[in-house]
Amino acid sequence: MRTLTIGAAQLGPIQKADGRQEVVARMIALLDEAAGKGCDLVVYPELALTTFFPRWYMTDQAEVDAWFEREMPNAATRPLFDKAAGHGIAISFGYAELTAEGRRFNTSILTDKSGSIVAAYRKVHLPGHAEHDPARTHQHLEKRYFEPGDLGFPVWRTLGGNIGMCICNDRRWPETWRVMGLQDVELVVLGFNTPSVNSQKAEEDGEKRHFHHLLSIQAGAYQNSTWVVAVAKAGTEDGHHLMGGTVIVDPDGTVVAEAQGEADELITYACDLDATRFGKETVFDFARHRRIEHYGLITERSGAEAPSQ
Amino acid sequence: MRTLTIGAAQLGPIQKADGRQEVVARMIALLDEAAGKGCDLVVYPELALTTFFPRWYMTDQAEVDAWFEREMPNAATRPLFDKAAGHGIAISFGYAELTAEGRRFNTSILTDKSGSIVAAYRKVHLPGHAEHDPARTHQHLEKRYFEPGDLGFPVWRTLGGNIGMCICNDRRWPETWRVMGLQDVELVVLGFNTPSVNSQKAEEDGEKRHFHHLLSIQAGAYQNSTWVVAVAKAGTEDGHHLMGGTVIVDPDGTVVAEAQGEADELITYACDLDATRFGKETVFDFARHRRIEHYGLITERSGAEAPSQ
Repeated sequence: MRTLTIGAAQLGPIQKADGRQEVVARMIALLDEAAGKGCDLVVYPELALTTFFPRWYMTDQAEVDAWFEREMPNAATRPLFDKAAGHGIAISFGYAELTAEGRRFNTSILTDKSGSIVAAYRKVHLPGHAEHDPARTHQHLEKRYFEPGDLGFPVWRTLGGNIGMCICNDRRWPETWRVMGLQDVELVVLGFNTPSVNSQKAEEDGEKRHFHHLLSIQAGAYQNSTWVVAVAKAGTEDGHHLMGGTVIVDPDGTVVAEAQGEADELITYACDLDATRFGKETVFDFARHRRIEHYGLITERSGAEAPSQ
Repeated sequence: MRTLTIGAAQLGPIQKADGRQEVVARMIALLDEAAGKGCDLVVYPELALTTFFPRWYMTDQAEVDAWFEREMPNAATRPLFDKAAGHGIAISFGYAELTAEGRRFNTSILTDKSGSIVAAYRKVHLPGHAEHDPARTHQHLEKRYFEPGDLGFPVWRTLGGNIGMCICNDRRWPETWRVMGLQDVELVVLGFNTPSVNSQKAEEDGEKRHFHHLLSIQAGAYQNSTWVVAVAKAGTEDGHHLMGGTVIVDPDGTVVAEAQGEADELITYACDLDATRFGKETVFDFARHRRIEHYGLITERSGAEAPSQ
């Protein structure tokens, strides 16, 4: 048994007018609760410090950049790092990153139990669009405000296991999971902000979107025999509803813990990283079963093309 | 609307002692039923003509080869092809193929509505093992009796759409689906013979295996926005139970038709191939969203390796 007790710290909505200090105070309250439950690691959502700002079309770059962090930790988040170190709990959360070179990414970080950042991931699969689209019921401008992540899908040896990260829409792409699976990943942590309606298909309701969310995560967990912790920012932000669905999923693809509501809420589970071994050594023993000579199109071609015959 | 009415023709168990003629008569009865329901295409399971013989350990090659077909159609299956042509129904089924060069594959074929074979697929992901394994509750010797398919995962323009095939264990591998998705697949047909217990984990019951079966198929359908028809050989063959779970799944990943039992049973659904377009043009518009520069490990490496950091 290599048990890592994980807290999935769902955040309720963050309004545009809410300051980072208020949000960090909520994150610290969840961290204190996690300490009482013996957590080794607490995972917060994507863009945990602010509202989901890519729903707003902005043309003033200064207005855009107000949603970004220029360093991490910074004045607003330092109390969270300090509290985590005080409890001896590792944390992971997402934020909008503005680098010294002026590049913008949708980023998540992971610390060790002393509050030092040991891993950073930049979202590869940016959903949505880059220009204002009046045909949509709401905007989803991640392709406007971020560039695609440039770090791939690394897996880190840390906290006694092999840990990877991805963010939100990445979970719908089996390549995300497989690249980490091929690095023997044992735990994937991910945060998400997912509108509960499809901006291009009004009849696709929250129930269908919750189904797609779980389907993607459970398949990724099962097919790579890894634990997954997926954490929502949920509820209604300035009139725009985000689905909940914070879950912890075991290496068999089974949901073992699930948030009940759409507010700030902590769920925990004691994850035995050794439970990933059975799947990795049998049905998903990649070395025995994968046939890479037939997978060429996956890396040769971005888009679909009509069949040649 | 490009509607293809599909019949998924589940077969109940086939005992070792059952001859191919008996089985073909059962397949024809399902075909006649499908004709009455207006089917354009009828799909039968993997190894449709015989019992699931890889559960038996054999060392006499003549005994092994008795389970294989040296040509297709042949005397036993000619009546099925003739009946299909008479009805004007395309068919797909699986069988053990012994080529003129003496190579053995787990194969499936697809005909057009005149009974001519227009497509052949050879199973790429062979599960199980090659030598007798006394530690297992039952044997699963596909790696003994077959070589891995050498044709990749082609997609064919036929029957008014883009159609691909895979077989049984292939469905658990997201690479299977993605390689076809990158050829704009609109319908994947697959047959399976899946024991309802894990030979290496007795506590993994039929319910869990049914969950993994559906999870893999529904994720493949959703993430590639394709129809899927998955057809079981089900029930108890000489004391060995195979799960059912014949389903038709839409491009959203939703099960739209499902077999009720474990005997010979036809389920049908009118599949609009144009329903694949929405997903392919939005969330799974591969050209806009896939980032192949980060997928390299998928084709570089068969097995998992420990993380480098």
